Formats: sequence, structure tokens, C-alpha cells
Amino acid sequence: MKAVRLHEYTKRPVVEEVPDPKVQSPLDVLVEIGGAGLCRTDLHIVEGQWADKSGVRLPYTIGHENAGWVRETGPAVTNVSPGDAVILHPLVTCGLCRACRAGDDVHCANSRFPGIDADGGMAELLLTSARSVVKLGPNLRPADVAALADAGLTAYHAVRKAVPLLYPGTRAVVIGAGGLGHIGVQCLAAMTPAEIIVVDRSAAALDVVKDLGATHTVLADGGQGAAVADLTGGEGAHVVFDFVGEGGTEHEGVAMLRRAGSYFVIGYGGRVEIPTIDVISSEINVIGNLVGSYNDLDELMTLTAQGKVRLHTRTYPLEAVNEAMDDLEHGRLQGRGILVPS
Amino acid sequence: MKAVRLHEYTKRPVVEEVPDPKVQSPLDVLVEIGGAGLCRTDLHIVEGQWADKSGVRLPYTIGHENAGWVRETGPAVTNVSPGDAVILHPLVTCGLCRACRAGDDVHCANSRFPGIDADGGMAELLLTSARSVVKLGPNLRPADVAALADAGLTAYHAVRKAVPLLYPGTRAVVIGAGGLGHIGVQCLAAMTPAEIIVVDRSAAALDVVKDLGATHTVLADGGQGAAVADLTGGEGAHVVFDFVGEGGTEHEGVAMLRRAGSYFVIGYGGRVEIPTIDVISSEINVIGNLVGSYNDLDELMTLTAQGKVRLHTRTYPLEAVNEAMDDLEHGRLQGRGILVPS
Amino acid sequence: MKAVRLHEYTKRPVVEEVPDPKVQSPLDVLVEIGGAGLCRTDLHIVEGQWADKSGVRLPYTIGHENAGWVRETGPAVTNVSPGDAVILHPLVTCGLCRACRAGDDVHCANSRFPGIDADGGMAELLLTSARSVVKLGPNLRPADVAALADAGLTAYHAVRKAVPLLYPGTRAVVIGAGGLGHIGVQCLAAMTPAEIIVVDRSAAALDVVKDLGATHTVLADGGQGAAVADLTGGEGAHVVFDFVGEGGTEHEGVAMLRRAGSYFVIGYGGRVEIPTIDVISSEINVIGNLVGSYNDLDELMTLTAQGKVRLHTRTYPLEAVNEAMDDLEHGRLQGRGILVPS
Amino acid sequence: MKAVRLHEYTKRPVVEEVPDPKVQSPLDVLVEIGGAGLCRTDLHIVEGQWADKSGVRLPYTIGHENAGWVRETGPAVTNVSPGDAVILHPLVTCGLCRACRAGDDVHCANSRFPGIDADGGMAELLLTSARSVVKLGPNLRPADVAALADAGLTAYHAVRKAVPLLYPGTRAVVIGAGGLGHIGVQCLAAMTPAEIIVVDRSAAALDVVKDLGATHTVLADGGQGAAVADLTGGEGAHVVFDFVGEGGTEHEGVAMLRRAGSYFVIGYGGRVEIPTIDVISSEINVIGNLVGSYNDLDELMTLTAQGKVRLHTRTYPLEAVNEAMDDLEHGRLQGRGILVPS
Repeated sequence: MKAVRLHEYTKRPVVEEVPDPKVQSPLDVLVEIGGAGLCRTDLHIVEGQWADKSGVRLPYTIGHENAGWVRETGPAVTNVSPGDAVILHPLVTCGLCRACRAGDDVHCANSRFPGIDADGGMAELLLTSARSVVKLGPNLRPADVAALADAGLTAYHAVRKAVPLLYPGTRAVVIGAGGLGHIGVQCLAAMTPAEIIVVDRSAAALDVVKDLGATHTVLADGGQGAAVADLTGGEGAHVVFDFVGEGGTEHEGVAMLRRAGSYFVIGYGGRVEIPTIDVISSEINVIGNLVGSYNDLDELMTLTAQGKVRLHTRTYPLEAVNEAMDDLEHGRLQGRGILVPS
Repeated sequence: MKAVRLHEYTKRPVVEEVPDPKVQSPLDVLVEIGGAGLCRTDLHIVEGQWADKSGVRLPYTIGHENAGWVRETGPAVTNVSPGDAVILHPLVTCGLCRACRAGDDVHCANSRFPGIDADGGMAELLLTSARSVVKLGPNLRPADVAALADAGLTAYHAVRKAVPLLYPGTRAVVIGAGGLGHIGVQCLAAMTPAEIIVVDRSAAALDVVKDLGATHTVLADGGQGAAVADLTGGEGAHVVFDFVGEGGTEHEGVAMLRRAGSYFVIGYGGRVEIPTIDVISSEINVIGNLVGSYNDLDELMTLTAQGKVRLHTRTYPLEAVNEAMDDLEHGRLQGRGILVPS
Repeated sequence: MKAVRLHEYTKRPVVEEVPDPKVQSPLDVLVEIGGAGLCRTDLHIVEGQWADKSGVRLPYTIGHENAGWVRETGPAVTNVSPGDAVILHPLVTCGLCRACRAGDDVHCANSRFPGIDADGGMAELLLTSARSVVKLGPNLRPADVAALADAGLTAYHAVRKAVPLLYPGTRAVVIGAGGLGHIGVQCLAAMTPAEIIVVDRSAAALDVVKDLGATHTVLADGGQGAAVADLTGGEGAHVVFDFVGEGGTEHEGVAMLRRAGSYFVIGYGGRVEIPTIDVISSEINVIGNLVGSYNDLDELMTLTAQGKVRLHTRTYPLEAVNEAMDDLEHGRLQGRGILVPS
Repeated sequence: MKAVRLHEYTKRPVVEEVPDPKVQSPLDVLVEIGGAGLCRTDLHIVEGQWADKSGVRLPYTIGHENAGWVRETGPAVTNVSPGDAVILHPLVTCGLCRACRAGDDVHCANSRFPGIDADGGMAELLLTSARSVVKLGPNLRPADVAALADAGLTAYHAVRKAVPLLYPGTRAVVIGAGGLGHIGVQCLAAMTPAEIIVVDRSAAALDVVKDLGATHTVLADGGQGAAVADLTGGEGAHVVFDFVGEGGTEHEGVAMLRRAGSYFVIGYGGRVEIPTIDVISSEINVIGNLVGSYNDLDELMTLTAQGKVRLHTRTYPLEAVNEAMDDLEHGRLQGRGILVPS
């Protein structure tokens, strides 16, 4: 089969022929890829930023946002059949540890992460597990939803955790209206009655979220703190979702909180730095957010099938991976890039 | 009446005669003080550290951990009667804002804080409100419980919030076995089945908590991080309660967390500093904790009446306030100092 | 002032002159009524069904769904001022008991219920308390929202409690699309992503809720159980809200539950009857629901001001109370009847 | 191997030789039984009460409370190894449905129940799955804990669900101090600060729970309702755990609730019957309880290893199953009977 393989850090991956993966373990599921999302993390992998963390041995196949159709299943697989359209949870988890049994499979004690530390989905076929495949409703196409497998799932997960905090009359600030943020806005609108205030440096990005459920938009031109204070009656927001997490938003985001408010960290790169006296005197919280669980992904697919979440995508043939990477790197890619094997 | 009055910052307060406070508003409650706890915050007030924050006009009466007996009540008071033994919630709250109505009266939009920004309880009488008086069970004496009004209530509140996280098999680390920490340990033992690991620099303080419910004690001699790792099977703790919050515990405490663990900030002085990538990759939380609510104080009094929480105290006559302050300042005061009007 | 007074059970009330109520207690608030909702309970009061329960002494003024403008306030009132438009929480609560302090003021240990056991709001003026007045946003008129004070608040409260159970992919059944039910549907649509299946005997009532957020409607013609089974993939609903609670819905509603589902009782008249083996083998729950709290009412007013909840009303002059009662009794009243003092 | 086989309903089972079960599926685990609890349900199975519900084909091996040592594992098993001491969750679950992934595996869409609808553990060997084996701590012996696998787990699960309702100052009533109830009392004492009021018809049973954490005991001699009212200050209990569920406790239990209280149904046989007006006017809840999850069982084993839960047992050789059944049937069996293969 064809696959996008990384042979050397700092050099772009190549598309080449490799042997087809085979079903070997009882819970294995072999998936024909219908679409593999291209993510900024893929650029970072190429740059070598993940070399130590992942410990993966080169060459390997990248691609961690995958959807397609089941081709073959191991003998213990009971939840999907060949031909089923599926989206893949990014992790392959064990199902036996406490975390997996408690709905918290992202913290599985024995997981692997295809596309990061094992062969991924920028290929014609991907070998995954019965524990990772979410069946798609009849109105969803793999290439359209693939990018929800990781980016969308992360945004969904953060919003889902905040639902109990967001009753009528509360305000949620979303920092960053990009790939994750614009999904987060849609999830907030679908699941909570909160007012949604979106902050971004790009007026174009703000225009997009106006149609997706944002109550107010604020251009991050230096006056965003004052603008949020104004929009929250001087009290601050109940929840701030920071989809950026660097370049100053880590400080601005915390400053936008009201008393007893919660700052949800989703983007990363910067540092949370708060004097402990401020943490306690306002009784605020800093909440970490990783990607969502399998059940989260299933719920997100429900929202998507119901038309409550939609995603802008641009497809490229698998062979055009480097053109797609160029477009992403140079800001020419509106929406998410999706690689589609021919 | 006699009262401990602060006339000038950096100079010790004096005990002097002032006019008795009078019941004026319908919900006013006039309390004869049975005991007023002496707290390190009182030293900081004298030093002037709170001058700007409180904005209080000198001279005024200090003392923010108070208990006694009701002497007189305003016409709208229905929950206590003259003669009732009571402990006082540290805040006087409005009862009408959303926070007060939601069980979160610590975030009352219109509160005052006797002993900090208004006349406090190191005196023969204190004027408070029906919203602040918790009746004591027949086996509790005001002077014995006064110090639970603020220090104890803060420890209780943090533990109470963590109860849902602490099921059988979980581990809680308590950093700091002093005034707040040793109450926290007792609350953990009373309300959760968690293993309790207590970390302190003082072997004597650790000895005390061994009898109060600690499962393990760890001397903070530099090897405390490794010791906690060892006691948690290399995984870290589900919850870390940091009753110190300065001098390095802010970093050690976060490092003691397991994946998806929560670091509860109670003590203060230092800074929380965590790269956002660490917040998200371990999906950890930083949870601020202020003093508890009125209902929290009522619950803490229940535990105390049941013998599940007890406090070491040393009483001084009100006139000996400066001797007590000297003892506190120079580390000669074991347990909490309580000023008792004669 | 003019007031609708009940002099004798089984005889219709009369509109007559009575002395104006006066502000007497510090937290009293005197309200000029802008609208008083007419409720089936008012008919039951006249019939004498509430005589024993309320123990009220005749004659008295009925009317328990009230909104208007503040005319005068007692000296301790800080949350409203003369001229403010307000809706009234149906209970006057103490603010000092544990329930009031815990956000659960409906279970206040010392409440009264104007219109039921004290003089109510079908009058020009009503005396209430600072604890009962919710300020209205500038776009809400008292006569338009008065009926939300009790009927709407009950529906809101039940839905609010169910929010944690209703994530994407879940199904909620609403039995009864009438006065409470059609508010419940709007609250579900505003606060949850659940599919909403509405069951009613009236095709006209079902038509109304189709525009208010219902995903599916089911005519209760005997086949409603099968229809719900069909719409839930044979599994049953996660939550059933029974706004009828008599005439068989108590049995049908429970039968519509899936494993671990919850049956919310809101309407009444019938009996819940379930073999304990069925309760445990399916691990189902029966959840009682009374009227909502003050904060619930505040939240409902937020949804109403945002246009997410709306109510069909028909106004009558206060003097036409008996015409309105006739219309209600004989099914000629579409929407809620609102009495407006001239 | 030897096994206790039921050949015909209404006739006692026989101990006979059957072929050893073999590991066949990848997640299979073959366990040498160290102890199999005898339960009243086993008597009901023999009587034929479960014939229709289970649909099991005779002859088959009974025994649904099992513990022992792993003998052999299938190729996909990673969580246990031969020689490990284990207790068995009563269900064998799929691990792939939403319920299994959400920590709610008791509602697995594809489970089987050894001892009920498949061959059970009154035998020398039992074939189960990696998803059902909980490793025992070094201080726990299979024969000592086997009866916690079902009876104990059910009691634990009910108490665990009630933890958020039981803060300091609350009262829990336990109806039935027998096999399940006395475990429930210990779990309440280990996990909550609630006052525990135990009601039973047997003074001897009450004596046992006095040493296990009961705050008060009440003999069910007809005055139990009044006694509970008295012990709860006339208000009723926050939670009532009914481990009997028949013979009148279904009515008494509900009547013992305070406003907004919750009646937990665990025992069965009778009927819950409550007018809907009583459900709503007191806003009470009826909460069904089935057996606990795998993680619940793991937590219960933690409490047991910590010495917080203990069980009275009497062991019989496997061959003496009918003697044990006689003893159980005729009330001669104090504690739980455990069958131990020789």
C-alpha cells in the first residue's frame, strides 16, 4: 500500500509503497482510510519536536486523525463488521485498567498512539483495535469528519467537562477561534445556554464563529481584557477556554475569570504563572484538558450527525501531502486539510 | 468593654476600654466572646501587610476567629436566642445575592470581614449577624472551638470539595501538618477512605498527625518527592493539599500528582508555575480554596461534636494578647492561642 | 385596593376593596401587580381541595404566579428599589435555615406561600420579601412572564436537575405538552443536546411543541409505548418527564425507561407502583420534583430574556377573574390566563 | 473436575465429575476456585424461580460468588498471571459497549452471568474473562472474600452511590442488618461521616452491627417508624437503604425519609407504591440498585484489605453443598456459607 513515511527528522516525509498491515491480534481492526487529517502537530513531528517524547523508530507512517471503512476484523471483534464506516479514536487502549473501565480511557495505563508512536493513518490502510472504532451514522462521510478525531475531540472534551458550570446567565470565553476553537464554540452552543464570548486576533476567524453560535466576538488587539470585563458586567467569566495557551493568553485568560471561575487549558506552549494568594483569594481553578475519551468521540459524532457541529475541510490526494504541508505552513490552508487515498 | 485595638501599623495593639457595640439592624446579633483565636494573619495585620487590601480605618479591634454566647438579637433574628453558645462564620454576608443563595456565601457580593475590615472579636463583645452564627452542640465550649472558625474552616472546605475524588484506593498528600493541616488530616479521615500521606519539615508535627488519621508520614528533608513516589507505587497522588503554598511546596506539590490529579492550593505566599504542556499532557488541575461556607462551618461543628475533629489550644486572658503574640512569633506556642475575656 | 377574595369554599371568589398592605418588616417588599397567572390550582382552591393542607383562614386573596413593579421596600432591602420590574418566587423563605443557605430554598424550614396559605397576588398590591423578588431584564414585561413564576419554574427545575443525564445521544420523553410541558420542552432544547420526544393526547398541543424544540411527537392514542420504544431503538429513554402524573402515565412513563433511566415525577394525581424487583433489576430511579429555587427562577428569566423560552398568554382585567375561571374550566383558554389590574 | 450440578428444578444439585473447562478465547481466564459463596439466590434457582429469566439449559453448575487463583490465561490477557489470587466480578462483560466504557459495566449490552445463566463457580475450576478478575492484595484469601463478589458488591455499590448525599450531620437508615446490610453498615462507616441508624427484627443481628459502625440500632417491633423519627429530630433520614424490600419495609422505608430524601431499593420482593403527590410534595427519590461495577469490586477489595470491611463466614467442603443448603434454609447458618473444593 501507499503510505506517508517519515525517514529523517527535519526532512519532509515521502509517499512510498510499504507492505499492507495484517490483522494479528483478536481485537485488531484493519481500516481502509477514507481521510486523514493534517495537523500542526504533523509539522512538529517532522521538525523533530516529538522525537524524544514518542521514542518512535524511523521510518514510520504519520497521521493521527483518521476515518475510513472497516476491511477486516480479528476473531474477538463484535462491535464492527467489514464495510462499516468508522472514525478512529486516536489512542489504542487496553480496556482492562481502571482508567479504561472508568470512562477515562485517555489515561489508559497501556495505550499507544498511531501516527505519533506507531504507524498512523496517512496511508491506504491502518491497523487499529475494536476499542478505537466509532461507527458513523449513515449521513457522515469519513473524509468529512476525520479531523474531528483529535482536534475536534479535544475541543469537545473540554466543553463537556465544563457543562455543569455553564447554566443560564453564565459567560464562557473562548480564546482562539481556529481549528479547535471553532469546534468548541459549536459544542458550547449545542450543550449549554451560556453566553459565548470569542476572542481572536483574526477578524476573519471571528466572522466564522459569529455564524456558529458566538454571542459576542472580541478582536484581540490589546483591549481584549477590557472588552471581556465590559461584556461580563465587570465580573469576569465563569469559564475561560484557552485554545491558544501561549503568547500571553495564559495570563490574559486567567485575568478574565470571575471569582470561583475556571480557566481551562487546551492550547499549549506557554506557562501558567499565578501567585498562590491570587489562586486562593479568588478561589479560581486551572483545569487541564487532554483529548477526549471514546465515549466523548461517540457523542461528538452524534452532534455532527445532527448537524450541530460542522467543519471546513479541504481535501488533497495522499500523494500531495507535501503540498498540503506547505499550504498549512504558509497559512494558505483555510479549514482543515484532509488527505484522501485515491 | 475591653478590646484589643490596633492604633498604628507596626506597633502592637493595646487593650483598652471602648463603648459596647449596640444592636441596630434587624438581623444584628450581639455576642459575648468566649474565645478569640490568635492567627498568624493577626501578626501580618499588625505589620501592615493588610493595610491596603482591607482599607480599614485605625484604630480598630482585631480578631477573626470568634465564638461565644448570644447576648441580644435584632427583631428579625429567628435562628438564635440570648444564651445560645455560638461560633461565628468569619464573614457577614448579605443573604440576597446569587452566591449567598447558592451555598457559596464566601463569594457574597456584599460581605464584610470582622477583625479584618471591621471591628473583630478580641473584645468582650462582638456585633455580628444572624447569617453568621452557628449554634454549638451542648458538648462544645466556645473557647475550645473558636480557632475552627477560620483556620479549621479553611481546611474543612478544601477536604469537603475533594470528597468526590477520594474513593477507596486513592491517595491524598497533605503538605504541612500545622494548624490547618492537622485539621485537614482529621477531616480526611472522617469523610474519606483515602490513604493519607502527610509531609512536613517537623518530626514533632508528624508525630501529632500519626494519631489523627495519617496513614504515612514523610519528613520533608529533601527526599519527600521520592518518598511520595514510592508510597504511591510510582504513580503519584490523586489529590495534593498544599497547606503551605510557598517555599517550594508549590512545585513539589504539583510534581507529586498522578495523571488527572488535582493540586489544592490552601496556603499561600509562593507562585504556581507550570508549563501549559504539562497541565494538558497530564490533564492535571489546580484548585483554589478559600475559607468555607456557613454550612461548611455547621458541618465542621458536627464533626467536632462527634469527637472526629479536635484541636490543641492554649488560652490567654484577653489582656495578655501581646504575650500570646510574642509566643506565636517566637515559636513558643504549641497549638492555637485563644484569647479569653475575663 | 381591589383584590380577588375567596369567602367560602365551593363559591367563586369576588373582587372587592380591601385595605392596602403595608411594609412592616425590614425585608418587606410591596409590589404593584402587573400580572397574576391563573392556574388550575386556583380552581382546586375554590373547590376546597387545599383547605386542610393550607389551613388558610377565609376570606383571603388568591393568586400565586405574580409579577409587577416594586412600590416600596423595608429598611433592610438592598437588592431592589422602587420602580424595578420583578417576578416573584412563589415562596417567602427565611434565608437562615440550611436549605435556604444551600440553594434549596424550596425546602426552607420556615416558608409561607402567598396565594395558598397567605394573601396572594390577584390584587393591585402584594406584600412579599426581598428574598422573593427577581429583577426582570429590560425587555421583559411582568404580565408576559407572570405565569413562569410557578408553572414555568416547576418545569425548569425538573429539566435543570436532569441536565447531567442528558448528553449527546440521549433521549428525553416529555409526557404532556400543556402549560408545564411546553416550557419543559423549551428548557430541554436550550440546555441539553438530547433528542426530545413529546407525548400528548392532543394533536394541537403536539403541533405547538414542534416549533419549540421537539425532535419527535407522539400522539397518545394507545400506541405511545410502542412508538417511544421504536423511536429509542427498542431501548427506552434515558429520562422521562411526566408532567401529567395520573390517568395511567405513571405506569406508561416508567415503562418507557431504558436500563438505569430516570422517571421524573412532576404532574400528580396518580400513584407510582413498581415491583421492587423491577426497580433493582433495571436499576431505574423515580425522581420527585417540586417548584424551583430562587436561583432557578433567575435562570429561567435569563432564558426568557434571551428569547429561548416563550409563553402564550391571554390577559383579562382583574375584575374578569370569573370569566377567566370559566374559560379555564371549560377548555376555552388557549395558553395561560393572566389577570391584570387596571 | 468436581462440580455442583443442577439437573432438575425442585431437586437438589449433585456433586459430580465433569470435564475441565478449557481456555478458548483470547481473553479467557481459567480460575481454580478457592471459595464459592452460597446465597439465598441459589435456593431460589433450585426452586425454579429463575428458570424463565435465566433461560439456562440443565444440567449446569451453580455458584455466582467466586474467588480463587488464576491457573491459565488466553493470549490477550495482560492483567493477571497464573498463580494470582483473584475475586471474580459476577458478570462477564464485553468491554466494547458504551456502558462498559463508561464505568457502568453492570449494564453491559452483551454480558453473561456465570452461576445464573452459564456454568458457575461451585466447582474446582471456573472459566471467566480478563474483564472479570480483580487481583487480591497479599493479605486476602479467596475463601474469606468470595461472598463479597455479589452480596457485598451490591451493598457497596448502593452506599458508594449515596456518598455525595451523606455529609456531616446527615442520617442514613439501614433496613436489614443481615448479609448485605452488615456490609453496607461497614461501607457507610468507612466512606461517610453520616449517623447510621440500623433497623432489624433480630436483636442478634443488631448486636453484630453495633461493633461495625452503627450509631443507633432500632428493633423492628412495630415502633421502628416512631423510633427513627425520634432519632432524626422528627425530620426523617436523608437516605434510607432498604436491604429487605418486602414485607412492609417498602412502605416504612419511604415513610422514614425527610424532605428531599432518597430511598435506595436493594432488597426486593415487594412493591414500591407512592401517590405521585407525595413524591412531588416532599421531592423524594426512589433509587434502584443493582450489583456494583468491576471498579466497585476493586474498591471494596481495597476496603477489605485495609480491614475496614470484614465478613463472617463458615466453610464447607464442596461435597457438603446440600448440608450447607440445609443449614441456610433452616436458619442454622450464621454468616455466609462458603464452599471450598478440597
